Amino acid sequence: MSLVIIRKNAPTAPWQQAFASQAPDLAVHAWPETGPLEEVDYVLCWAPGAGEIARYPNLKAVFSLGAGVDHLLSDDTIPLHLPIVRMVDKSITDGMVQYVVMSVLNHHRRMNEMRANQAEKIWQKLDLSNPQIGIMGMGGLGKASARALAAMGYRVRGWNRSGRPVEGLEVFGGAGCLKPFLAETDILISLLPHTEETIGILNRETFAALRQGAYIINAGRGEQLVEEDLLRALRSGQICGAMLDVFCKEPLAADHPFWGEERVTVTPHIASWVDPVAGTAHVLRAIEAIKHCEIPEGQVDRTAGY
Amino acid sequence: MSLVIIRKNAPTAPWQQAFASQAPDLAVHAWPETGPLEEVDYVLCWAPGAGEIARYPNLKAVFSLGAGVDHLLSDDTIPLHLPIVRMVDKSITDGMVQYVVMSVLNHHRRMNEMRANQAEKIWQKLDLSNPQIGIMGMGGLGKASARALAAMGYRVRGWNRSGRPVEGLEVFGGAGCLKPFLAETDILISLLPHTEETIGILNRETFAALRQGAYIINAGRGEQLVEEDLLRALRSGQICGAMLDVFCKEPLAADHPFWGEERVTVTPHIASWVDPVAGTAHVLRAIEAIKHCEIPEGQVDRTAGY
Ligand SMILES: NC(=O)c1ccc[n+]([C@@H]2O[C@H](COP(=O)([O-])OP(=O)(O)OC[C@H]3O[C@@H](n4cnc5c(N)ncnc54)[C@H](OP(=O)(O)O)[C@@H]3O)[C@@H](O)[C@H]2O)c1
Ligand SMILES: NC(=O)c1ccc[n+]([C@@H]2O[C@H](COP(=O)([O-])OP(=O)(O)OC[C@H]3O[C@@H](n4cnc5c(N)ncnc54)[C@H](OP(=O)(O)O)[C@@H]3O)[C@@H](O)[C@H]2O)c1
Repeated sequence: MSLVIIRKNAPTAPWQQAFASQAPDLAVHAWPETGPLEEVDYVLCWAPGAGEIARYPNLKAVFSLGAGVDHLLSDDTIPLHLPIVRMVDKSITDGMVQYVVMSVLNHHRRMNEMRANQAEKIWQKLDLSNPQIGIMGMGGLGKASARALAAMGYRVRGWNRSGRPVEGLEVFGGAGCLKPFLAETDILISLLPHTEETIGILNRETFAALRQGAYIINAGRGEQLVEEDLLRALRSGQICGAMLDVFCKEPLAADHPFWGEERVTVTPHIASWVDPVAGTAHVLRAIEAIKHCEIPEGQVDRTAGY
Repeated sequence: MSLVIIRKNAPTAPWQQAFASQAPDLAVHAWPETGPLEEVDYVLCWAPGAGEIARYPNLKAVFSLGAGVDHLLSDDTIPLHLPIVRMVDKSITDGMVQYVVMSVLNHHRRMNEMRANQAEKIWQKLDLSNPQIGIMGMGGLGKASARALAAMGYRVRGWNRSGRPVEGLEVFGGAGCLKPFLAETDILISLLPHTEETIGILNRETFAALRQGAYIINAGRGEQLVEEDLLRALRSGQICGAMLDVFCKEPLAADHPFWGEERVTVTPHIASWVDPVAGTAHVLRAIEAIKHCEIPEGQVDRTAGY
């Protein structure tokens, strides 16, 4: 029995150390080193590449190194019966809440204009609006962000697939309720997963349905945003600015217009990350659950796609 | 019986409207119009000027238009028996929590460097520290800020005068415990009131006691900061930057070095403000309490000075 870590663009050492200390008896390999393929029970990975997972004949589960599993679900060679488990941990939630709250505050409290005033030595109090915030995706991350913003006095509403209620917050459910949700939103935040249904959801029509001069925050996935539509909506004034952490193609190409658009803040997919020690504990708990034929926390519904 | 509003540098109309709708029977004057001085029971004011309050012979209480009362306590012609009541309202707390959280996030999440990277089209994830936050002043505003930061995963400790505990947080009490509190602090936030004891408390010695490269946030009062000491500590690298909302002299003079110091962010005393509708309700509740010989919420301890 062994576990293989596939992490191609970042070091595996912190994860290997965490497994060595939390589960010294578990054989852990760092890809491309795998040991005998038929002895591998678990793969913990980020973007392993199409066909990679199918190479391990006796896998019991695949774990994602991040909250998203789009990098796995896009690979149709992964056997359908294989449980796919995403990362769920307080470190991911904390990082995302920080990112979302920072984005809202810098926009609402007009920090760009304050900095411009400082450069001109202008002492001037600016009027502040009382924005209606709308969060698309009220899962673990959306709910925690909503709670933090509401606790600071913001008016927050959510949109999800099921209409599942969230304590104390107004939640709109499904495509049919998207327009009324957007119609009163001044700051739109996407914390949606990447699925067939969410591709291109931040598009011209969505922007047009928002309040004039709305602000966009995308920390879900890049494919959700039609980048050309955002640029057009910025030009028309329908959208006043955006804070973007995720992009269709990452790293963002050197000639991409977002870099030079001063109303767009570009961050390099850093909204949130998992702490390896806590993430390893999550994986080990999931392995225990699977051994006891229980459904581990974070197991993905492959029909829904998230 | 009447109430006089003294607000010299900002409009009184929103307050007059709020009183007209919440207490239509109360005669309300906007200074310099006062009606007969002997008929004035209450003054609601900001920086009325020395000697002004003593002109009203039958006053029952003085209300501050803000959370601070330093603008009143500095006037030693105000009769000692007269209750002074400061503004306490959720709108003040929300605004301050927003300001403090925004300041911490922009520093911790390295937004200045991210923006500089964007200008150079550099896609680069930056390492983040796990800062220890220390809040000086754990009153209404300090406690709420501490709670918001802790809920986002930050390590937060407080310092107050009494050592009064705050749920779940380590609190250091009094001057004797200042050094151990500072010794492990990476981000120091002042939400202290302006009193004789807090004048100049953010000084060279305080900065030297902090962790090397600490960050300063002052939203208490300008007099707490020895401005020259901060500039020196920035030059030496002991302090890496600061976010300042309050200054010894406001508006900040055009030739003040803070304007041009890129590691200092200057904001024009906008961290927080009170909503006139809610603030009027607070004043009316306090008036009711005084009529019933009860101590109103926000009554100042004139011996302690806050
Ligand atoms: N930028 C970063 O650094 C970073 C870091 C971590 C995560 N993320 C992204 O954040 C996403 C969300 O993470 P999470 O942990 O909060 O996920 P989650 O708990 O699975 O929640 C997903 C939410 O999206 C809703 N949803 C899914 N498809 C929908 C649709 N077609 N229409 C409307 N709502 C839909 C779900 O609705 P129901 O509640 O009705 O099921 C649920 O509320 C991840 O998938 C990942 O892409 C980004
Ligand atoms: N920048 C802005 O826009 C803005 C807006 C609103 C308020 N403010 C400032 O914020 C201040 C705090 O407001 P608040 O409502 O939180 O006041 P508060 O509830 O009266 O709390 C004051 C806190 O400071 C502590 N303190 C006072 N003197 C001290 C000393 N010598 N040593 C150590 N701790 C001391 C008190 O300790 P104990 O708990 O032991 O009594 C208490 O925790 C106001 O006075 C005002 O100056 C600024």
